[in-house]
Parts: sequence; structure tokens; C-alpha cells
Amino acid sequence: MGIVMKGADVANAMKEELLQRVAGLKEKGVSPCLAILRVGARPDDLAYERGAKKRMELLGIDCRTVELPRDIRQEIFEEKLKELNEDGRVHGILLFRPLPGHLNEEAAKRIVDPGKDMDGMCPANVAKVFAGDDTGYAPCTAEAVIELLDHYKIPLSGKRVVVVGRSMVVGRPLSMLLLKRHATVTICHTRTRDLPGVCREAEILVAAAGKARMITQDMVGEQAVVADVGINVDEEGNMWGDVDFETVQEQASHISPVPRGVGSITTSVLAKHVVQAAERQTDNE
Amino acid sequence: MGIVMKGADVANAMKEELLQRVAGLKEKGVSPCLAILRVGARPDDLAYERGAKKRMELLGIDCRTVELPRDIRQEIFEEKLKELNEDGRVHGILLFRPLPGHLNEEAAKRIVDPGKDMDGMCPANVAKVFAGDDTGYAPCTAEAVIELLDHYKIPLSGKRVVVVGRSMVVGRPLSMLLLKRHATVTICHTRTRDLPGVCREAEILVAAAGKARMITQDMVGEQAVVADVGINVDEEGNMWGDVDFETVQEQASHISPVPRGVGSITTSVLAKHVVQAAERQTDNE
Repeated sequence: MGIVMKGADVANAMKEELLQRVAGLKEKGVSPCLAILRVGARPDDLAYERGAKKRMELLGIDCRTVELPRDIRQEIFEEKLKELNEDGRVHGILLFRPLPGHLNEEAAKRIVDPGKDMDGMCPANVAKVFAGDDTGYAPCTAEAVIELLDHYKIPLSGKRVVVVGRSMVVGRPLSMLLLKRHATVTICHTRTRDLPGVCREAEILVAAAGKARMITQDMVGEQAVVADVGINVDEEGNMWGDVDFETVQEQASHISPVPRGVGSITTSVLAKHVVQAAERQTDNE
Repeated sequence: MGIVMKGADVANAMKEELLQRVAGLKEKGVSPCLAILRVGARPDDLAYERGAKKRMELLGIDCRTVELPRDIRQEIFEEKLKELNEDGRVHGILLFRPLPGHLNEEAAKRIVDPGKDMDGMCPANVAKVFAGDDTGYAPCTAEAVIELLDHYKIPLSGKRVVVVGRSMVVGRPLSMLLLKRHATVTICHTRTRDLPGVCREAEILVAAAGKARMITQDMVGEQAVVADVGINVDEEGNMWGDVDFETVQEQASHISPVPRGVGSITTSVLAKHVVQAAERQTDNE
């Protein structure tokens, strides 16, 4: 039976380090601050916002929400974003996406200050993550997987890692973070032939496909490490990962559950980014 | 014995299409123009420049070289780059790299107009290539591999492709171009364990490691397609690919030679980018 990799354990370990760094900033008179920019009030966004606020509070990071009406005009939305860019008290910005259909998300990505772009959405950060440049911010969920594997002391260098999913928020950036750590990375997706065969070759398997319980026992090699990034909610409101946890756990050396796995680490990564941003913005003054 | 994939055949096929598009532009009164910005006079740069000029001439594309002294100051260099950005007659810019050590290459990457950045070096184009957005310009050598495989009608969708090398000019962007074409892509590098074993799994193997004849027969699966991006010059001035051509050819279904393989296609891709840029800049007027 594989060891269960618990998100809370990772978040707790990160908390200790982050508390120290926040204290260090406060000694310099800097109060790290995250601004959440939310358009409308989608339940998913509100749930994540509650979690983020709680995490920031726990770490002594200020968190303010700017809520904009769902039918806001592009110009006003862009103005608000620019105000946050220019506000010296705000170190990081989190913009909930997807934006309502009438808003131009690509334009928003180009407007946000790369140094405040906490979820790695702007081209400058995307390019840095692609290039393996540490000064860029990666999407929080992608980086959460690295935090999970590091916390459980899973070596990455030289390992065969298979990432199932090629999205811009998980699959692609995570592949680049793994490559930077010298893993041999294979990126799979819906068009991959013999997905079970490819997955079985993985020493570390990351499921980020967004399809409930698609990774079954026959797709996992003996003693593989399995990280599950899927969050799939069924009609009855139950949450499922991309991995069929019960059967895969028998096969794996380590496995992360859903819920209480990778998803419990993302707000800690967000907090880490805010602290990094505050430190960098302070050093640059 | 594998079929030899000849760069000249690909370049000739591209020529036919590009000549038509150049004619289309000229009918609209637009004369597509590439500006080459060269600092100093390194022999490699001069050799590439000669090839590029010849290719542009063949296709009816104007080509002008701006040569700057090796010891130029950053401010003057940046001014020249900005002049080319603003010059409406110039549709595309090729900047030879690496720049001399005293110049800030990262700054240059951020200055060049993404719409004129013919070798995909600026963050906006890097991010677009990473995201699979066709409006971005990829590095010419990476895209030359796609042109080669397409010309020889090698299907990519669902295929297992192994890319050896993770540079920002070939390995990484090429992996993303292949992913966009729905290949299952594995990225290998110096830290990969059992490189021969991983390479043998490839239906299409791309060698872009920069190490002469490192891909040997035992690393290539029966009937694999092998594309060689290596250009390695030995002490006697002989040019070698990353693939041990003679032995690997016995194994492969298709193989590209060095020289006269991928390297013979890069200036055609450069020309294609200039034509694309001229078309886009004309459409936007």
C-alpha cells in the first residue's frame, strides 16, 4: 500500500518557512499584501477565495479583494488592473479566470505587471517558466506538485516522469518545472496512443487530465509515485481525482489523494509567491 | 536502408509556395524585407548571413544587413534595434546571437517588436510557442524539423516522439510544436538515465543535443524516423550531426543527413516568417 502524500503536511511545512520570511519583511516595515481581483461571484472562485484569505491570514499576509460586477466594461476592468499594478502596497495580484466571455483575457494577461502576477499567467512569466528561469512565477497548481514531491523527498533528477494533460495551467508549466529539475519528461494527452503503456513506464506519474478516475491500476507501474491534480465534481457533488485512488494505491509507492492532496497546497504556493514578490520589490527599492 | 530526407527537397517545395505569396504581396505594393542585425563579424554569423541573403534573393525578399562594431555600447545597440522596430519598410528582424559578452541579450529580447522577431527570441513569441498559439514565431531551426517531417509526410498525431536536447532554440520549442501537432513528446537531456532505452521507444527521434554522432544504431528502434539537428565541427573542419548516420540509416525508415538536412531548411523558414510578417503587417494597416 502506497504512502498517502497529504497536502496539509506540505502546507504545514511551508507555513513554518513562510512565517519566518513574513516576519523578516515586517521587520523591514513591509507588510506583504495580495490583491484578489474577482469579476462576478462564481461559486468556484468564492470557494478558492475563502481558502486563500484563510491561508494569507494564517501567515500574516494582508489580503484584499476587489470585486467587480460581472458585466463590467473592458476599459474599467483594465483600469482596475492597472491601479493594482501601480499600488505600491500591493505586492501580488491574483485574477480569477476564466473571465466572463465579453472580457478580453489575453489583454488582461498582457497588462498585469509580471512582478505581481502571482499565478504565472502573463507572457513574461510563461516565457520564464518555459526557459527554466526561476525569477518567473509559475501557475500555483503546477508548482504545488513540485512542493508535494519535494516534501516527500521524491528525487526528480534523471527520473522518468509522465504528465497526463497539456493545459497551460498544469501540464505544460509543470513539465517545464520538472525538466528544470532534470527529470526526463513525457507529455501525454487525449491523442496519445496506448496511454496505459506510456503511463506504466513512469517512475513518477502526474495526472492532470481533468477526467475522473481515468488513471486505473493497470496504468501504473509497480512502486511508482502518483500525484493527482484532477478535481472532478460529479452530479451528486462528490469530488474525484483523475486517479482511481483505491486500486492505484495498492500499486504505488506514494500517492496523493483528492481531496486533501495537491489542491490543499495551491494557496500555500500563492502565499509563497506573494512573499517572494514582496521580498523582490523591497530589494529593488 | 532508410530514406534520406534531404533539406534541399524541402526548401524547394517551400520555395514554390513562398514565391506565390511574395508575388501576392508585391501586387499589393508590398516588398517583403528582412533586416539582419549583426554585431561584429563572427565566421558562423557571416556564413549564415550569406545563406540567408541568397535564399531571400531567390524568393524576391529584400534583405539588408546592419553591421555594428563588436565593441558597440548597449544604448547605441538598443537604438539601432528600435530603429528597425519602427522602420515600416522592414517586416522582419534577425539578430545574430550570442551577442558579445558586454551586451545585455535579455534586454534585446524584450526590445525587439514581437511581430518582427523572426527567430522567436522575445518573451511574447516564446510564450505563444509554449501555448501552441500559431501567431507566434518559433525559432527557425525548431520549425525546420516540422517542415522536414511534413514534407516527407511523416504523421505526427499520436506518435511517440523523443527529443534529445532541451535548449531554448531547438529542444524546448520543437517539443511544443510537436505537442501542438498531437505527438506524445518525451524530452531527454544529459541527466536522462538509460538514454538508449528511452530513444528506442521513439517512433520519431529528434537529435538536438550538440554532440557529434552520439545517437548510435543501438539507440534507434526498427523503422524509426530520425531527424538530426546537430551541427558539430571537428578539429579538421568536418561537419558531423548528432547521429551516426551510416549505422543508424540501416535501422531507420527515414533519416536526415548532416550537412544537407535540417540545416538547409532554416533559411527557408526564416523567409516564410518574413512573408508571414509582411502579410500580417499589411493586413493590419
